[in-house]
Amino acid sequence: MQLHDLELSALQDRIAAARADFEAFQALKLHLDMTRGKPSAAQLDLADAMLGNLGPQDVFTASGEDARNYGGLQGLPEVRALFAGLLGAPPEQVVVGENSSLALMHDCLAWAMLHGVPGSTQPWSRESAPAFLCPSPGYDRHFALCEAFGIRMIPVPMTGEGPDMDVVEAHMRDPAVKGMWCVPLYSNPTGEIYSPETVRRLAQMPTGAPDFRLFWDNAYAVHHLTPDPAVLEDILPACAQAGHDDRAFVFASTSKITFAGAGLAFFGGSPANVGWFLEMAGRRSIGPDKLNQLRHLRFFGDAEGLKRHMDAHRAILAPKFDAVDAALRERFDDLAIAQWRRPRGGYFISVDARPGTARKVVTLARELGIALTPAGATWPGGHDPQDANLRLAPSFPPLEDVRTASQGIALCILIAALEAERDARLNS
Amino acid sequence: MQLHDLELSALQDRIAAARADFEAFQALKLHLDMTRGKPSAAQLDLADAMLGNLGPQDVFTASGEDARNYGGLQGLPEVRALFAGLLGAPPEQVVVGENSSLALMHDCLAWAMLHGVPGSTQPWSRESAPAFLCPSPGYDRHFALCEAFGIRMIPVPMTGEGPDMDVVEAHMRDPAVKGMWCVPLYSNPTGEIYSPETVRRLAQMPTGAPDFRLFWDNAYAVHHLTPDPAVLEDILPACAQAGHDDRAFVFASTSKITFAGAGLAFFGGSPANVGWFLEMAGRRSIGPDKLNQLRHLRFFGDAEGLKRHMDAHRAILAPKFDAVDAALRERFDDLAIAQWRRPRGGYFISVDARPGTARKVVTLARELGIALTPAGATWPGGHDPQDANLRLAPSFPPLEDVRTASQGIALCILIAALEAERDARLNS
Repeated sequence: MQLHDLELSALQDRIAAARADFEAFQALKLHLDMTRGKPSAAQLDLADAMLGNLGPQDVFTASGEDARNYGGLQGLPEVRALFAGLLGAPPEQVVVGENSSLALMHDCLAWAMLHGVPGSTQPWSRESAPAFLCPSPGYDRHFALCEAFGIRMIPVPMTGEGPDMDVVEAHMRDPAVKGMWCVPLYSNPTGEIYSPETVRRLAQMPTGAPDFRLFWDNAYAVHHLTPDPAVLEDILPACAQAGHDDRAFVFASTSKITFAGAGLAFFGGSPANVGWFLEMAGRRSIGPDKLNQLRHLRFFGDAEGLKRHMDAHRAILAPKFDAVDAALRERFDDLAIAQWRRPRGGYFISVDARPGTARKVVTLARELGIALTPAGATWPGGHDPQDANLRLAPSFPPLEDVRTASQGIALCILIAALEAERDARLNS
Repeated sequence: MQLHDLELSALQDRIAAARADFEAFQALKLHLDMTRGKPSAAQLDLADAMLGNLGPQDVFTASGEDARNYGGLQGLPEVRALFAGLLGAPPEQVVVGENSSLALMHDCLAWAMLHGVPGSTQPWSRESAPAFLCPSPGYDRHFALCEAFGIRMIPVPMTGEGPDMDVVEAHMRDPAVKGMWCVPLYSNPTGEIYSPETVRRLAQMPTGAPDFRLFWDNAYAVHHLTPDPAVLEDILPACAQAGHDDRAFVFASTSKITFAGAGLAFFGGSPANVGWFLEMAGRRSIGPDKLNQLRHLRFFGDAEGLKRHMDAHRAILAPKFDAVDAALRERFDDLAIAQWRRPRGGYFISVDARPGTARKVVTLARELGIALTPAGATWPGGHDPQDANLRLAPSFPPLEDVRTASQGIALCILIAALEAERDARLNS
């Protein structure tokens, strides 16, 4: 049933009932946080064996180098081989960084602005108004980087199988469009999976800028919430096949695999892009923390070990996502008030509330003691043109808290929608 | 005795004797490397307890945060307090980075170029020809950063107690001079110690650029080679006293204290500079590897523990520096052929060979199987105007190898000088 099918009196009754529920919730004096995609303590515990798995005899790499000393800019070959699957790249086209893939994206952008990338005729900072396509809703920290570097952001709608490629291809003719943010698997926050067709079109499309780059943030490459994981087409072979070998910078990390503060970050790309990255990175540092690389290697052993580890994460995470989904379904059973999908992986649930009410929902939730990501945060410049999108992050709180918070959030979405409908009728 | 005091026949005799020694050395078929300031395995062993000193119960910070998770951008307060002495700054004016102070210098330069620093009216990349003063000989990786960022380098001679301040102050009037590299304690490579007067003048001097910065690389803050360590005046209080609070960016690391590949790097500065650094760094990463911070904290305990640890380094390093000094003295006993100082700390011995012969010395050493840093590497652009300076790095090879290599190097310096003197006479 749509809200506008309700009689005004029925609407008023529902508002009264919902407000009564709201007061009951307020009496609970909650302090719940659903803002950021942080692993829970139980998830971090899964990697605790990594804390003590390097003895004084274990500090040597496969080639016999002492991992305690300087060097090894690209990362250990055996570690690159272990994680190559996250990048969809052969190990020789992978670089291991420190603990943050965001840092690698920042550095690629900074170097592009200062020096340009392979194929550039000048540094991006010399272009009159460099722009990035920003599939939206998207990741707020991507957008913050563009803002910091003075890169214009062009929102592109999502379709359920990635960005709207007709819109993307239309913008691509503009040589000012230098890049595009992509979280291709379990997109942050919508959870959608770029279809093979989307990946193919991104690889093949003509671009006005000869040095255009996909910033391919494969943050959730192995972060499945179902036993039958989705398969994402690898972007690097797709680009190579299309004759656009250098089109994609690929990023990943183990922040949500081992320790969020002490994982490994990865860069993958064509030989030319990797050569460029290493040239830039080689000025910046003599080499990464190879002991932490060895800890990861000893802990997982091989790709099968990594898969088993992610199954253990799934056992902790999936019930939390189920709890959010159940709470939303329960509250909206007979009314089409909000749209959301149950993601098959990743860290977020994206909910579109009634347009014009997202900010109100966040305010109402705060009154219940539930912290939500600010409305608009998932849009470039913090501006959601519909004021509809909410990003829920259920990973960190315990399951029982996720359940309670989700019920509270659903209630806030309902109240905001009902009262907006009422106000619209009374004002018309 | 000076070379020119020798009769030609005596010169020829000495050349013949030295060349005979050279052939004897060649027969040893050496493979020795005196190029980079890397800690030896024995030094790295000193920190091996750090590998296993964090159990699953030890991952919490003093304030109870879980160090395995995201956050803590500035670094743990207890770790900042432990290492504040390296920076000469209170803990609240210290930031802990990842494993490389060079990376922090790179990032400060990149951000200055893209955004400017506190006090800038525009990004440094918009200046017509930004320049840095480069005390020379100096650290090749500093100069490589300037080169990469298109920053003009102005060499400044060293005096034995830091850069020639009359030259520095004369250049300072030029508003294009945005920065200056300083390794104030045990300078790389000359080993000299900036005098209190030098530090004071650097802090007080008027500058043409309102956003001028000292890049104060205190790489060897606790790396003493004598039991009575030198005392360096802290630059931050000196700047504050002179009313130039924001003048210095201070850098340090534990790369040559714990593990060269897996240490901690530090930034220190005025409150405004630290605020700026954290604003920039906060876009780049959600936070550093706090587990590695805790490993360092548990390992040292306090400043006294750090001091004891550095005494153990000194016991390994001092004999190697002694060996170099002894080999040079032995070979040059009666001839004033080369100038060098016995450093009281740091990682290098800087030798000035006869002008015009440094390249020849490196070539001769290679013929003996001894790798030396390329001649000129210690000068901006790789250009030593005198072709005289050689940088010897005795830390990495075992003591016996350092002794042998130093004898070989001294021989090469001697041969190059003798033959240059002979050639000069024969051509005159």
